[in-house]
Amino acid sequence: MTAVIERQSVETQAKKAKQASYVMQTASEEEKNHALLILADELEKNMAFLLKENEKDLDNGRAKGYDEAYMDRLKLDEERIKGFSEGLRQVSELEDPSGVTLEKWILDNGLEAEKVSVPLGVIGMIYEARPNVTADAAGLAIKSGNAIVLKGGSSAIHSNAAIARILREGLTHTKLPEEAVQFISSTDREAARELFTMKEHIDVLIPRGGGALIQAVVENATVPVLETGVGNCHLYIDENADADKALPILINAKTDRPAVCNAAETLLIHEKWLKKYKDVLNAAFNAHGIQVHGDETAVQHMDGAKKAEEKDWTDEYLSLDIAMKVVSGLDEAIGHINEYGTKHSEAIITEDEQTAEEFLNRVDAAAVYHNASTRFTDGSALGFGAEIGISTQKLHARGPMGLPALTTVKIKLRGNGQIR
Amino acid sequence: MTAVIERQSVETQAKKAKQASYVMQTASEEEKNHALLILADELEKNMAFLLKENEKDLDNGRAKGYDEAYMDRLKLDEERIKGFSEGLRQVSELEDPSGVTLEKWILDNGLEAEKVSVPLGVIGMIYEARPNVTADAAGLAIKSGNAIVLKGGSSAIHSNAAIARILREGLTHTKLPEEAVQFISSTDREAARELFTMKEHIDVLIPRGGGALIQAVVENATVPVLETGVGNCHLYIDENADADKALPILINAKTDRPAVCNAAETLLIHEKWLKKYKDVLNAAFNAHGIQVHGDETAVQHMDGAKKAEEKDWTDEYLSLDIAMKVVSGLDEAIGHINEYGTKHSEAIITEDEQTAEEFLNRVDAAAVYHNASTRFTDGSALGFGAEIGISTQKLHARGPMGLPALTTVKIKLRGNGQIR
Repeated sequence: MTAVIERQSVETQAKKAKQASYVMQTASEEEKNHALLILADELEKNMAFLLKENEKDLDNGRAKGYDEAYMDRLKLDEERIKGFSEGLRQVSELEDPSGVTLEKWILDNGLEAEKVSVPLGVIGMIYEARPNVTADAAGLAIKSGNAIVLKGGSSAIHSNAAIARILREGLTHTKLPEEAVQFISSTDREAARELFTMKEHIDVLIPRGGGALIQAVVENATVPVLETGVGNCHLYIDENADADKALPILINAKTDRPAVCNAAETLLIHEKWLKKYKDVLNAAFNAHGIQVHGDETAVQHMDGAKKAEEKDWTDEYLSLDIAMKVVSGLDEAIGHINEYGTKHSEAIITEDEQTAEEFLNRVDAAAVYHNASTRFTDGSALGFGAEIGISTQKLHARGPMGLPALTTVKIKLRGNGQIR
Repeated sequence: MTAVIERQSVETQAKKAKQASYVMQTASEEEKNHALLILADELEKNMAFLLKENEKDLDNGRAKGYDEAYMDRLKLDEERIKGFSEGLRQVSELEDPSGVTLEKWILDNGLEAEKVSVPLGVIGMIYEARPNVTADAAGLAIKSGNAIVLKGGSSAIHSNAAIARILREGLTHTKLPEEAVQFISSTDREAARELFTMKEHIDVLIPRGGGALIQAVVENATVPVLETGVGNCHLYIDENADADKALPILINAKTDRPAVCNAAETLLIHEKWLKKYKDVLNAAFNAHGIQVHGDETAVQHMDGAKKAEEKDWTDEYLSLDIAMKVVSGLDEAIGHINEYGTKHSEAIITEDEQTAEEFLNRVDAAAVYHNASTRFTDGSALGFGAEIGISTQKLHARGPMGLPALTTVKIKLRGNGQIR
């Protein structure tokens, strides 16, 4: 390892990334793909180093008494590292999102206009525990012709620094600039806050992690932010829902991976459907250990249900708990979703096509479902190849963000002396 | 006039706009177009009222001693009001940007995905003197299926309030909700600041005006912002520039409308070209009253040139002043632009195609020109029909923003019980 990650000021690193971004934007697809394959190999070659550095994070984690799930997210092993490399190789096979001609037209005066996709420039990535984000995000940035400044969480600092060091060292064996990957080695919050306002050098901030991290970025950043992640998703079981679809979808959306953002958090249920199916619903919830936090009517009908408070409607549980509200029909369901939803993924279960279409049209969210589980809101499930995050805002990109979300546009105008 | 603009809290108005946006998003193209035509008629019918209210702003302006240009921007007359109406009628003829199917695909499990354009929801428009923004922005919002909260500058408060009142009154004669147009009648800065953080009710903020206004929004908003306007545009005259193109383009870009954002502010000139053409350049600048603020070499060659300071490279003049730097070639020119430009519009004049292409590829800006004036960066000049502003940021929309910039996307997923 020659490319040591020195401690430099955040501003110095951001400036270096900006300079490198000007080289990256003109790199050919071949150069970028070649670099990704080299980096994939380097990660595998340096497995021993990586595992040794990861062990430091694990030691710290054990000392701090992190729970098993957290330790598992932190842990690297041969298979996971090979997974990072495989990820980079897959990204090398995706279409280059930059340099694509999106539109071409000629003005009356003969001026030729061409709108092309171009890299954003410098991406500031602010994330929490999982070390895989370091390799994944760097790979997506490189493929799309961007430079990246990485700021990971302190609990994975040794693993993240090691991955970044290998990537930078690897870049010295390619035609791309080593400085295109910057890793902020400081773990204090001030370093993150410096990134928030570095508009001159950073083109976009992408926070990935829990709600508190994302809120801190959104509230403090002057750099444009691609907000990701929080999913307070609802499932509405309509009067005319088919129980053979409703129950499996509900159980899947709630229990398949309760901790992810596309899991269901609130069940809205038509009063008539509930009366008809409350026994099977109770049985299903009991079988899967689902705890209901319901409104008054739900509490009357559901075994062991607790009374819901305001926070049950607003917050994600990310567990086997579910909020449950009994509604009189579509309008009430949509009203509740548009008031409490985080505009991520929302589903209706019904056999009535017209009701379904109305739901799809009137609910304001990145993904709206009819008779399917909310769990499909995911870059790979939707066929986007790779994902830098799931946008829960409306500007630029909404829903799962693949490589095109890391580009902007430029209008090239070619003339022969046109004036206005 | 029955629809009085009452003084309400900004939050109340934003909430009403949010509720109205849910109605707007399902309005048909026919209903929206019909409403625009009604509003156009109403503005003309209420011309006397509008002129009377405008007179109050003019009186205030005269009392405050505003300069002629400012008073001219403030002033309404029959022709200008007819211009507003004509603008609304033209918008009614543009294509509806919402409800367009952008992509359709089917997942392996049979789940049908459809990506459609949908309105953003509620647009917060924060602007300065010109009353035309009130009518224009409301028209574009209505056409794209959005609600809008308008916060204009205090100097045009009576004119803006009168226009908003006529529009709201007009909406009561249509199928669209009157509450879709909200006008903040308070002129204090606190009211604007309240809008900045109303993420729950406002989906995007669009500031239009001077640099100070835009900076205040960008620095204080937690609502996503579409940054517009500031254009520190450069013209680079290369060694191989044709003087018969270079001079007319330079004069046009600088003098056609010096106060607009797509006017040239800095001339970068190749040292060899300058030596060859300095006499014609001096003659042209003298004939048009252009004041040079140059680097050392420029000061040596240009009549009456002042020595440039740092702010000459960073700021817009919006006048007949121009900053001028003599460069040794393309790299120095691009380096200067990428350091000082505001990523708005940048031009190269050269007969060397390869140099031109390199400039177009390497300069980071919304619009990059070869052998043409920067003045074409404008929604109507580029054929976009109407424009809500010119984005100088990279996310969502870049360059002139037409109606599609007021939409986002939604993925509709139609299934028959798919789970993951």
